[in-house]
Amino acid sequence: MAHPDPGFKGTKVLLEEDEIPTKWYNIIPDLPSPPPPPLHPKTLQPITGEDLAPLFPLGLIQQEVSTERYIDIPDEVREVFKLWRPTPLVRARRLEKALGTPARIYYKYEGTSPAGSHKPNTAVPQAYFNKVEGVKKLTTETGAGQWGSALAFATCLLDMECQVWQVRASYDAKPYRKTIMQTWGATLHPSPSPLTASGRAILEKDPTSPGSLGMAISEAVEVAAADPNARYALGSVLNHVLLHQTIIGEEALLQLAKIGEKPDVVVACTGGGSNFGGLTFPILREKMAGKMNPVIRAVEPAACPSLTKGKYCYDYGDTAGLTPLVKMHTLGHNFVPDPIHAGGLRYHGMAPLVSHIYELGLIEAISIPQKECFDAAIAFARTEGIVPAPEPTHALAAAVREALLCKETGESKCILTALCGHGHFDMASYEKYLSGEMQDLEYPEEKVAAALKDLPVVE
Amino acid sequence: MAHPDPGFKGTKVLLEEDEIPTKWYNIIPDLPSPPPPPLHPKTLQPITGEDLAPLFPLGLIQQEVSTERYIDIPDEVREVFKLWRPTPLVRARRLEKALGTPARIYYKYEGTSPAGSHKPNTAVPQAYFNKVEGVKKLTTETGAGQWGSALAFATCLLDMECQVWQVRASYDAKPYRKTIMQTWGATLHPSPSPLTASGRAILEKDPTSPGSLGMAISEAVEVAAADPNARYALGSVLNHVLLHQTIIGEEALLQLAKIGEKPDVVVACTGGGSNFGGLTFPILREKMAGKMNPVIRAVEPAACPSLTKGKYCYDYGDTAGLTPLVKMHTLGHNFVPDPIHAGGLRYHGMAPLVSHIYELGLIEAISIPQKECFDAAIAFARTEGIVPAPEPTHALAAAVREALLCKETGESKCILTALCGHGHFDMASYEKYLSGEMQDLEYPEEKVAAALKDLPVVE
Repeated sequence: MAHPDPGFKGTKVLLEEDEIPTKWYNIIPDLPSPPPPPLHPKTLQPITGEDLAPLFPLGLIQQEVSTERYIDIPDEVREVFKLWRPTPLVRARRLEKALGTPARIYYKYEGTSPAGSHKPNTAVPQAYFNKVEGVKKLTTETGAGQWGSALAFATCLLDMECQVWQVRASYDAKPYRKTIMQTWGATLHPSPSPLTASGRAILEKDPTSPGSLGMAISEAVEVAAADPNARYALGSVLNHVLLHQTIIGEEALLQLAKIGEKPDVVVACTGGGSNFGGLTFPILREKMAGKMNPVIRAVEPAACPSLTKGKYCYDYGDTAGLTPLVKMHTLGHNFVPDPIHAGGLRYHGMAPLVSHIYELGLIEAISIPQKECFDAAIAFARTEGIVPAPEPTHALAAAVREALLCKETGESKCILTALCGHGHFDMASYEKYLSGEMQDLEYPEEKVAAALKDLPVVE
Repeated sequence: MAHPDPGFKGTKVLLEEDEIPTKWYNIIPDLPSPPPPPLHPKTLQPITGEDLAPLFPLGLIQQEVSTERYIDIPDEVREVFKLWRPTPLVRARRLEKALGTPARIYYKYEGTSPAGSHKPNTAVPQAYFNKVEGVKKLTTETGAGQWGSALAFATCLLDMECQVWQVRASYDAKPYRKTIMQTWGATLHPSPSPLTASGRAILEKDPTSPGSLGMAISEAVEVAAADPNARYALGSVLNHVLLHQTIIGEEALLQLAKIGEKPDVVVACTGGGSNFGGLTFPILREKMAGKMNPVIRAVEPAACPSLTKGKYCYDYGDTAGLTPLVKMHTLGHNFVPDPIHAGGLRYHGMAPLVSHIYELGLIEAISIPQKECFDAAIAFARTEGIVPAPEPTHALAAAVREALLCKETGESKCILTALCGHGHFDMASYEKYLSGEMQDLEYPEEKVAAALKDLPVVE
């Protein structure tokens, strides 16, 4: 049942720069049905390219709705990728040994990017496609800071302006995230800010508001929409963002082929869905084509389990209800997740494309509480060395579960996961864990029930 | 005069895992004369292996005094290295373009190690050679934190205990450095601590002492010397530490040969000397053999310029005068460097081997003030992406100087440097620089004159 060990003796599987994929993979034409269209928040009609034009450049809108299976990666984008790509695929031999498992665990490590996560994989092409259409400035929001850092890095290299609205609580608590974005030349604003109408409205009611991702989105969108030289950039959820991240899975397939491996189980964490889609969509293509048959499993936090506990229906992408309505697994746009350490997974919804694929039964989903995730993170750091970001600790915990299952059954499965970033800016979370102060935040049943009462927004 | 461009078109030059060097290079037998011996601090006679045995294992003592040109790297050590080595050699094309220089700039990047610097190159073999002799526990001191992190990582992977005395001021100011060492299982003590006689003596006089590297060394040495299962580990200065770091230069030579390059100028920062020696000793071997003819230049901080302004004489390695006397370029063992941001370069002396080679006229040395270094760091981060640690910003500033000289002369020189670590745990320094609050700390002439009055300790 499990694929036999093909006998790879090394630790890292590397690719040369000229092996960086030349095309992104668009999974939509390979699906039995396309995902339901986003709806305009006022007309409730399927949204058009024109509706999106004030916020996104044409090049990205075309990718968002494309039915082409492959989309060329521009040479200029591949040139920037060469600063850190291809990323290594690593056999976690020391972790396997510590677990005493016959399983083979591989992780695709995206923390080698200068910004420290997989986010530059989409930040760079988003900046590029804006730049070729004459856009001078990008605006965005950031909570945990990984996405803001990636966009600051990308715009800096492409000589564009970048304005980031950082949730006030995060702006105050994580000064080093702010500083690294400024090092790359970005302008930071704590959100809510007095610079926008939406920010001012919030500050008038509550001058000490700690902010939220929803508020920060409103501010970034407002500024982009009002400035013809500016556009808005989003770090996950949308089709074109997941498209850009498929470079992770394409490289992983090349690397697995090099050593004769085929995965039996693929686990990846999912918040908005870009890391999960990025690793797994190319693998799902191979699976649908009958070339391999892995179980593909999304892993989400127990405190914010949109896929496993949410409702599949049309909902807003933001709290204020300004974004298009998308059909997705959602805990309700009024749901405010508890403050778990994996800030990048604290999103009430899920990428519509991941949601659709889950509904089609092509993938599985589980949720894991954060203490088990940090158990796995410590086991990983103490064997493989790298200190993971809180988000991919969910994938590591799922990989450990699977490896321990193999220990019971004696099966030598090939487990593939994505280590989508390092935790160098998240040491406060490790401090909490190591000092025994970390709390497990379980599924907030009543809060979700209350938030779901407002759904569906439309039938 | 400058080597012509051999036409390498890529960005990174990679090596496979089986190209990790199998031997360290010991430069001593290739020098026209050996460096003067260390002297016992009490007898003033050349120190013996027995004198060192309470602190270091025999394997490392043998390396310290070896006259063999090459020393085998144990397979077990190379296996650990495979977690991140070989490290990339990168052509800094975007930096070159931004500077408008015809020079070709290459940097060897050591920040891919889990601990984020070149220090694990010696931490892992030091832990290994202790372990094979039955040592269960290593003690050390750390100031800036790079060395403590590296030893915590190395001992963790080799399943040994690690106790780190962290200078109290750094322990309080850099809590995330403390947390990453704890993540790898190390025990941290702020120094001065009540755990040692030397710590208690200091605390009795001054219960709020901020500590110093000298005090922390005394505590770590005291604990190791009193425990037959423990030894002490040092992160720079000693011959065997520089020996271990030659893996950097050996890999760089392989990488340069792959693309047909020969360096015209090699610049590396130097504090204790391990990064500088690591990159340049193998290159110096090639130069002495007539195979290439680069200028080799050490770069030190203007505020702590031991090579360029110090006295070459016997002095103590620590403030308290407990260590052996070594002949080196020193600002005096009572010299306390001003608090520049490159904490890893704040050492009053220089590796005896680097000092000796400088006296032989085989290398050059310059000093650069820190604001120029951070200018270079920002230029680097905004073109190449990586945010450098404060220490290698000195090497980058020297590379930029050389590249701008090429712009004037029109020469297309090949410049090689070492980017020995990332700055993810040094963002407070960038914050200072970006907010305009960073001060240039110039050469403290009077303070050095006062410290030099006590020298030489012996003729």
